[in-house]
Amino acid sequence: MENNLSSKLLESAAEEFSKLPGIGSKTALRLSLYLLSRSEEEVKQFAETIKEMREKIQRCRVCRNISDTETCSICADLRRETETICVIENIQDVIAIEKTGQFRGRYHVLGGLISPMDGIGADELEIGSLLHRLRTEPVKEIILAFSTTPEGDTTAFYLFRKLREFNLRITTPAKGLSVGGELEYNDAVTLGRSIQNRIDFQ
Amino acid sequence: MENNLSSKLLESAAEEFSKLPGIGSKTALRLSLYLLSRSEEEVKQFAETIKEMREKIQRCRVCRNISDTETCSICADLRRETETICVIENIQDVIAIEKTGQFRGRYHVLGGLISPMDGIGADELEIGSLLHRLRTEPVKEIILAFSTTPEGDTTAFYLFRKLREFNLRITTPAKGLSVGGELEYNDAVTLGRSIQNRIDFQ
Repeated sequence: MENNLSSKLLESAAEEFSKLPGIGSKTALRLSLYLLSRSEEEVKQFAETIKEMREKIQRCRVCRNISDTETCSICADLRRETETICVIENIQDVIAIEKTGQFRGRYHVLGGLISPMDGIGADELEIGSLLHRLRTEPVKEIILAFSTTPEGDTTAFYLFRKLREFNLRITTPAKGLSVGGELEYNDAVTLGRSIQNRIDFQ
Repeated sequence: MENNLSSKLLESAAEEFSKLPGIGSKTALRLSLYLLSRSEEEVKQFAETIKEMREKIQRCRVCRNISDTETCSICADLRRETETICVIENIQDVIAIEKTGQFRGRYHVLGGLISPMDGIGADELEIGSLLHRLRTEPVKEIILAFSTTPEGDTTAFYLFRKLREFNLRITTPAKGLSVGGELEYNDAVTLGRSIQNRIDFQ
């Protein structure tokens, strides 16, 4: 942070903003100056809302998704199918899948992926709670929906072996061409696999 | 804001972020999720620092710049020249000029520019306090450093007439080519004026 501001208070606020991902020191200063131009009431609401989120948000006791209550709104929703659990890495993935409107089952948030490079082993993930659900809920299908990265593949393979003892259908989202994109813009691996795994035209 | 988040707390935080300039709903969600991944202590510090800035920051009683104390650090700095006052629109301009390291005088922050379109007249600006300073401080030069917009030009012209009664040198920053840029990238008006107002090569 440049040190030619006449206010330490402003400087400190800008420093806090610049800790956020994707916010450089210029943007941080711009955001701080913007808040300085707003009413005290508005800025208080901004600060309190964010603090309250961090303090009050919980992890759903069933699926480990974020929740304002002990059980999240998805797990508490009686209209959601109980026979299918979609296992994902994090809450961002829940949000992304919910946005599609294509999944009516429930989730299980692992809280990460197995990554020996980052020192994250299976023990650090919410796998025990998943196995507990499989023993107590009427689950028939598990969708392993991870990023198509080495970590995602490792985690999927680990879970696939771990889940064999249960009588389950284990699935994973289809891989192939992006919908709505030019064929040539798909990367070579995706394009190659989409041809290898081609399906009947219908 | 899309309504498929399982947490109202998260949604509210993202809404607050998206009120900030240049922060769209996607970035707002990303920032909220980032803060959710930080410790409660860190998020509290983020929120408190911003709230404290808004609550405690003051306007310098002399120049109306932002300040942590009654008189800002620039006005309180005895090494700054007292004979020159640079009049600018807002605190962003103070920061920009301080960053150049080329000005050793003091400032006067108008708090805006005359803009009939936006209903801002001379009475809404810190002009009375500027005149008061001219009557009580040993000022010899006033630099009118405004944006080169119709509002900036109007304000400069208004002040130029208003300040004629004082025995002052009234100046304005040179206009011309950007330093360090390609000639062809300067806009036509700037380029034209820079040729009209050419200076001896030295």
